[in-house]
Parts: sequence; structure tokens; C-alpha cells
Amino acid sequence: MSRLLTEDDLPDLARGAAVLGTGGGGDPYVGRLLVRQAIREHGPITVLDPGELDDDTLVIPTAQMGAPTVVHEKLPRGTEPVAALRALERHLGRTAGATMPIECGGINSMIPLVVAAVTGLPVVDADGMGRAFPELQMETFGVYGVPGSPMAVAGERGETTIIDTGSDNRRMEWLARGVTVRLGGVAHIAEYAMTGAEVKRTAVPRTLSLALSIGRAIRRAREVGADPVAALAEALRGTLYGHLRVLFRGKVSDVERRTEAGFARGRAKAVSFDGRHELELTFQNEHLVAVVDGEVRCVVPDLVCVLESELAEPITTENLRYGQRVTVVGISTPELMRTPEALAVFGPAAFGLPHPFTPVEERNPAPAAVG
Amino acid sequence: MSRLLTEDDLPDLARGAAVLGTGGGGDPYVGRLLVRQAIREHGPITVLDPGELDDDTLVIPTAQMGAPTVVHEKLPRGTEPVAALRALERHLGRTAGATMPIECGGINSMIPLVVAAVTGLPVVDADGMGRAFPELQMETFGVYGVPGSPMAVAGERGETTIIDTGSDNRRMEWLARGVTVRLGGVAHIAEYAMTGAEVKRTAVPRTLSLALSIGRAIRRAREVGADPVAALAEALRGTLYGHLRVLFRGKVSDVERRTEAGFARGRAKAVSFDGRHELELTFQNEHLVAVVDGEVRCVVPDLVCVLESELAEPITTENLRYGQRVTVVGISTPELMRTPEALAVFGPAAFGLPHPFTPVEERNPAPAAVG
Repeated sequence: MSRLLTEDDLPDLARGAAVLGTGGGGDPYVGRLLVRQAIREHGPITVLDPGELDDDTLVIPTAQMGAPTVVHEKLPRGTEPVAALRALERHLGRTAGATMPIECGGINSMIPLVVAAVTGLPVVDADGMGRAFPELQMETFGVYGVPGSPMAVAGERGETTIIDTGSDNRRMEWLARGVTVRLGGVAHIAEYAMTGAEVKRTAVPRTLSLALSIGRAIRRAREVGADPVAALAEALRGTLYGHLRVLFRGKVSDVERRTEAGFARGRAKAVSFDGRHELELTFQNEHLVAVVDGEVRCVVPDLVCVLESELAEPITTENLRYGQRVTVVGISTPELMRTPEALAVFGPAAFGLPHPFTPVEERNPAPAAVG
Repeated sequence: MSRLLTEDDLPDLARGAAVLGTGGGGDPYVGRLLVRQAIREHGPITVLDPGELDDDTLVIPTAQMGAPTVVHEKLPRGTEPVAALRALERHLGRTAGATMPIECGGINSMIPLVVAAVTGLPVVDADGMGRAFPELQMETFGVYGVPGSPMAVAGERGETTIIDTGSDNRRMEWLARGVTVRLGGVAHIAEYAMTGAEVKRTAVPRTLSLALSIGRAIRRAREVGADPVAALAEALRGTLYGHLRVLFRGKVSDVERRTEAGFARGRAKAVSFDGRHELELTFQNEHLVAVVDGEVRCVVPDLVCVLESELAEPITTENLRYGQRVTVVGISTPELMRTPEALAVFGPAAFGLPHPFTPVEERNPAPAAVG
């Protein structure tokens, strides 16, 4: 059932999206400011459940592309993703009936809302990553047969680029990343144009409302002095993301981060409060794997989320700092994202990791914390 | 008057284009093989004098883009520039009535001939550089108001990219170069789509027939044992390129070359046969400046051409080798390329050179050689 999203929803949505962003997807705070401004100018946004979409409606997802470390410094005006959408419409000679997130994490939960507010299009409550991923071929849309091409890339000076690599979504990512680097490290895109029927078949459903509900659950727990991590686990129960495991509690002891080839890559370490255990995180924009005392506890595409210890506020990879007190949780991804064809595109091997994929709930059978 | 170009014309045309390529523009040998194959399959090519063009005919120039050092290693199939032309036609929703070179030097004198043979389109006897230049904004088309955008870039795997930077041709070059690097260092393009009237107003006319006539003059001089450099000077007399000066004769003593950011950059030195004089050349794909004994003798956009001493065969920058015996000549560019607006785009300062532009015939008043 369609609903209206208002300015009041944004803080909870941004918080929930940062959890699902698993450290990446860009700082949702910036996106939240853009959406607030757009809602104030254009009114509230219509959110469409995927089930409400006509099968032949053209849906054009919109997003920001770039290293979060750069996004942090180089704020968009908000017109860029609309320019990308319009450029792709012109190229296709067709008009979009809705937009949609490509990832439900971080700033990219917000960018399609800006587009929706400005254009008056509804936004579909679904996405193509079920979290955030660093590369454009890593979308369930592509895993299940929707080509990303042709896609549009828009820059801050009104430049637009149309990239068409046929059904080769990896090649599309490669070229779009090159353009994004030349545009200064951040760009806005429209890609994976598809029908309503294809959305229903390939998208991870209801991740916008999920982000909203988990953001709200964390806030309400804080308000009544309850444990916000327990509230997060409770909010996830019965959803497609049913399992949450606390993997580690401790202090960040080391962060190594570099921006290279358009990505923020690095590692972070944390030591448990008793000093007896060590966590190591590896990230490429998003967290990829959490290793505790040499043992893999959660690996991509399951979600590794770093939360500030007191309030469970999610911390993005570019905001990790020495000395932060953190609770690290693992969250199971939907089954749609754990099939062999999905793991071939965004499983551990796709990131060059040697670990096999084993679901977080199997790696951590009892809901127990270390540290 | 239109004429037919046949396989027999190609060796002379390639040689002349290599002279006008001023060391760059890619090895014309590869292009010559492509054109020969295309003519054998599709028949001879119609060359149109610019004066024969209808004012409202759509002309789409085609070219290869990339560092000559890479072009040398990575040969095109020949379908790529046609793919670029077709992609731009689809994007514009219009059909080309002719193609044209963007530069008359090196391989890019040949690429539009491949397109012409394959598509059956005529090729216009004119170009946008009057020589070769390393960057896409360095075209008389842009200098005199024709935007390069939208342009198409095609890769070897059938990928196409449309880049639209409005009237900012420098930005277009920047993005297209990024895409070309990602495509492996070489790509094929269609750009500066324009009307016949715009061709007449902005292009350097009759450079294809000029290349053919100077290539032929050099060959004929060899055949009768005459001085091929004198024959070259004679062939240029009375054209838009009226002045030739022999700047240096000697042996290549040092070559420093690197491929960076999509360009072949470097320096070469030569010592006169009596060991008393030294030449230094600086290049970015093409030769930019010739300095003899510390004195600038010829600077861009005038042409610095390195010819093998005996036969006056032009040597491209990527083929410069220690020990080669060379005659280095300076050739004056057409007045169209020496106006203040032209020098702002491709004069010495555009390449970061400190030298003011002074015409080669003023820097070298008497036709005399050193060494």
C-alpha cells in the first residue's frame, strides 16, 4: 500500500539506512539534508510497495556513485541525480513512472527520495543490493537478468554520459567508475531501467520501510533507556533479515584507510574491553569481513555493522576513528542474496577474499558476544 | 570536385599523413592496412571537396583516440569507428551524410576512410587540426564555435559511451580520455557533428589531398634519385602550408618516453653529424617544439617533422630510436590555425610551454640547415 514519506521520517530512515549500509553507501546525513530540502520545496514523497507497481511501468533507479571519503568532502546540489534520470529517459525515448534505490544503505537510500520529491515520481520500496555494495554489477537486478545498460552518469557541471555495455554489467561498472573518477570522485547515476514486473522478480523488497522501522526501533529504545542493539534485533525478527549476532564489543585500536581507483579501502582493528580479544575488519567502501581472534565471524554478503556502543548509532567506514567504543553485529541477508548466482556476483570471492560464504547464523549458532 | 580514392593511393596518402602527423596521430601503417581491407571488401571511397557539401548535410567526423604507444600494440578490428558513428547517429536521431577526419595526421587520416568504405558515406577532404594534436578540444571546429558534444566513444567489445559536456570541449576531452584509458588505452570516436556550412566555416580544407600529394612527391623524388626533402618543400609551395625549413640534420642520441594518463610524453635529442650542434624535441603524442643549441626553431602549432635522412620517411614519436639519422623540418600551419583564438586552444601555452608563438618562417628567415 502506498504511503507518504515526510520530513519527520528522515532521521529514523537515515539511521536505519546507515545500519543497512554496513559501513558504506556514503554518509546518509548529507542525503538526509538534501531530501529534507526537497520535501520542503516540493512536498512529501509517495512510497510504492513493489506489489502496487503495474507490470509495464518503467522504473529507473537513481543513485550516487563514488568513494565515501570523497562524498564526505564534495556535497551534491541535488539536481545531479535528476539530470541522470532525465538523460537516461531521453536516451531511451521513454519516461519513467517511478524511481527506486539501487542500494538501501547510506546516502543511496536518500538520493532516489530527492529525485522523487523533485520530479513528483513515486519511489519503489525495494532496492538491488539489500544493503550497500561498492560496485554496480553487484545488484540483484543484474544477478537475475536485468542489464544495467544503458546507464547515465551526471556530473556537477551538467555533464552527462551514457554508457552502454550490453549485458556486461561488470564492464559498465568499470567504465562508469572511470568517468566518476574523472568527474572528481563522485557522480550521480541512473541505471538498470526496468519494468514493474522485473522489479517484482529481481529486487530486494521493502528495504526502505525496513530501514525506517529499524531506525525507529533504535531511537525508541534510546528514549526509554532500553538496549538499542536488542531493539534492532527485535525489529529484524520476522523480516528477510531475520538473524542478528553480536560479534564483538571493544575499542577501535587501528584504522588504515586509503582512497584508490575510486574506492575507500582499508582495515580496522578493535580490542575487547578486557584486552583479550581482537577484531579485524576489512572494507572496500563497505565492511566485507569481520574476523575475531583469527576466526571469520561474518562475511559478505551478510552484513557487518559497526555501531557506537552506547546509542547503537551506526559508524560508516570513513568515520571510523581510533578509540571509538563499538558494538559490531552481523546480520543475515535475504535468501535472494545467498543463491549461487548471487554469491558469484557479490560473495566473498568477488572481493578477492579467500573465505567461503557461510551464513552468519551458522558461523555464530548461539546469540553470544565476545569481549 | 569529388574523386575516388583507391587502394593504389594508400601508400602515398599514409606517407603524407605521417608527415602532417608531426610525429603523432598514430602509426598510419596500421590504418592503411585497415583501409586497404575495407576498399577490397566494399570498393573505392568517394572524397568530397568541402565546396561540394550541401550546407545542411550532417557531417560526423570519426577518429581513433589513445596513446600512439598503445595503438602500436592493440590493433583495431575496423568496426569500432563505425560503431561510434552509429551510436552518435542514434543518440542524435539523425543520419550522417558524410564523415571527415578530425586530424589529417597519422592513423586518423585513415580511420574515416575505413568508415567511408564500410558505410558507403563520402569522406570530406578537410579536417579539424590541419596536422595532429593530442587532445580533442584542439580542433579548429571548436575554435570557431562548433561544440564537440555530444560525442560517442566505442570500445573493442561493442561498448559505446555518449559524452555530453555542452560547449565545454576541454571537459569532453577530459571525460573521453578517462573512458579511453579504461577501454585499454585506445578507443574510437565520433564527435563534432556539424552541418556542411559549419565544415566550410571551421575546417582546414583539402588536407586529405595535400597528404596524398606530398606523399606522392616524396615517393617520386626517391624513384628518380632526387632530394625528397626538396620535393616535399616544392609540394607544399602554394598550399596553405607554404613554408618549409630544414631545422637540423643529425643522429638521434637520446629518447625518453613514457605513457602516462593516456598520452605518450617525452623528449628526444639528436647531435649533428659534426658533433657541434644539439637538437632537443619535446612531444606529447606529437612533437611540440624543436630547440637547436638552446634556441627555439619551431613551436606548435607549426609542424615539427622528423624524417629519416635518406628517404625522408617520416618517423613517429613512438618509433624514434637511438642512432637514427634524421632530417628535422619545420612547416608553417595555415593562417586559420595561427589566429589568437586558435593559439589560445593549441598554441605553446596550451601545452604548458613557456615560448611565445612565432611563425617558423620568421624564426628561420633563410632556408638554411644546421649540422
